[in-house]
Amino acid sequence: MSQSLLLLSSSRVDDTPYLAHALPMLEKMIQPGSRWLFIPYAGVTISYDDYTNQVAEALGSLGGQVIGAHQTPDPVAALDEVDGVLVGGGNTFHLLHELYRLKLMDAIRDKVNNGMPYVGWSAGSNVAGLTIRTTNDMPIIQPPSFDALGLVPFQINPHFSDYLAPGHNGESRSMRLQEFTCVDPLAPVVGICEGAAIRRQGNALVLTGDKPGYLFEGTTQKEEIAPGSDISFLL
Amino acid sequence: MSQSLLLLSSSRVDDTPYLAHALPMLEKMIQPGSRWLFIPYAGVTISYDDYTNQVAEALGSLGGQVIGAHQTPDPVAALDEVDGVLVGGGNTFHLLHELYRLKLMDAIRDKVNNGMPYVGWSAGSNVAGLTIRTTNDMPIIQPPSFDALGLVPFQINPHFSDYLAPGHNGESRSMRLQEFTCVDPLAPVVGICEGAAIRRQGNALVLTGDKPGYLFEGTTQKEEIAPGSDISFLL
Repeated sequence: MSQSLLLLSSSRVDDTPYLAHALPMLEKMIQPGSRWLFIPYAGVTISYDDYTNQVAEALGSLGGQVIGAHQTPDPVAALDEVDGVLVGGGNTFHLLHELYRLKLMDAIRDKVNNGMPYVGWSAGSNVAGLTIRTTNDMPIIQPPSFDALGLVPFQINPHFSDYLAPGHNGESRSMRLQEFTCVDPLAPVVGICEGAAIRRQGNALVLTGDKPGYLFEGTTQKEEIAPGSDISFLL
Repeated sequence: MSQSLLLLSSSRVDDTPYLAHALPMLEKMIQPGSRWLFIPYAGVTISYDDYTNQVAEALGSLGGQVIGAHQTPDPVAALDEVDGVLVGGGNTFHLLHELYRLKLMDAIRDKVNNGMPYVGWSAGSNVAGLTIRTTNDMPIIQPPSFDALGLVPFQINPHFSDYLAPGHNGESRSMRLQEFTCVDPLAPVVGICEGAAIRRQGNALVLTGDKPGYLFEGTTQKEEIAPGSDISFLL
């Protein structure tokens, strides 16, 4: 097993173009002429065709080919014909629901654990963790289980931010993640800010990008992880 | 059946004291000397005792008695000994998980559909709707089902606000609820702002408090409901 994963917090940082900030990280993974299966099922208000086109355009300069899973007769079989998997953001519950329905959970996990590169952003990063219990998304549809792909042995919280709207009485992100650590003190959570990503190459794990991350685990709350840190201890 | 429900968006408005803004609405339901079973299971980082005390203090001026469900030997049996049910906010998934585990779902539904008054806020309002698929909370624990009490035949979204942090690329609340209406166009959603509440008395339904609400249903998106509106058409 030599997993190659790039788990991005978000598709955008500030008002930069779609996936633009990720291109320097992606060019190490996406070779010219390589074929990538794009999983569009986190998209709910965008058509899968439009979503696939948007990703293909954003990554065009890298010279890889992007194939929408929904455009193939059998997405599981299509995994045998590609060099890597891209899993886009949107609604995590919808994504996981469809991955189970289409029998893609075991298929993707097996491929990635045998070396197929995996790139996810937002919901696509959430489902790479142990479970989706630290997603920020609304549970608009009930998947058969919250168990996710488990490509890394911890929880991911993308779009990490502790910003609270002035006068609003909902919970901050850190309060939500603290609740998670109370319910499941043994599962570490890595919160990744927009602009940051987790890069796994075999047994090496690094927080990449120019933004920090935050670790929550048991009584450890919001422990900062500096950009570029080796976090292989989490594997 | 003559249901009496008060479903509050939140326990606080701006920086007012806990439940203070709700006292004028609550005094119509909580009679001096009446006994109320408080359901504390949405609380995760607060002890159930502390939570119960906080609610008892906040409602002290009304003269009702607040009994924590966790302090009774059998919460289902305790429903026979009280005049009403209070369901507090916190994490909706944890609340629903515990309501199922303790066999309180059918018990509460039966009592309320036979006239027992129900007061909920935040997560306690969410579980009064059809399902918890429009909660804002993190899915920190997996309940057996997303199906909720169904005391009203629609979805509730408490703490409604479309505020987005500057520069943040997550979804706005309206975008999240639009995703829900795409997945389930037949289920209406009422978003209630902090300060607003839904009051059901039998077949009459009113948006109460001094803040507006918003209706999402199918292609209807964020249709404003003025404070004080009769919304009985939703029943």
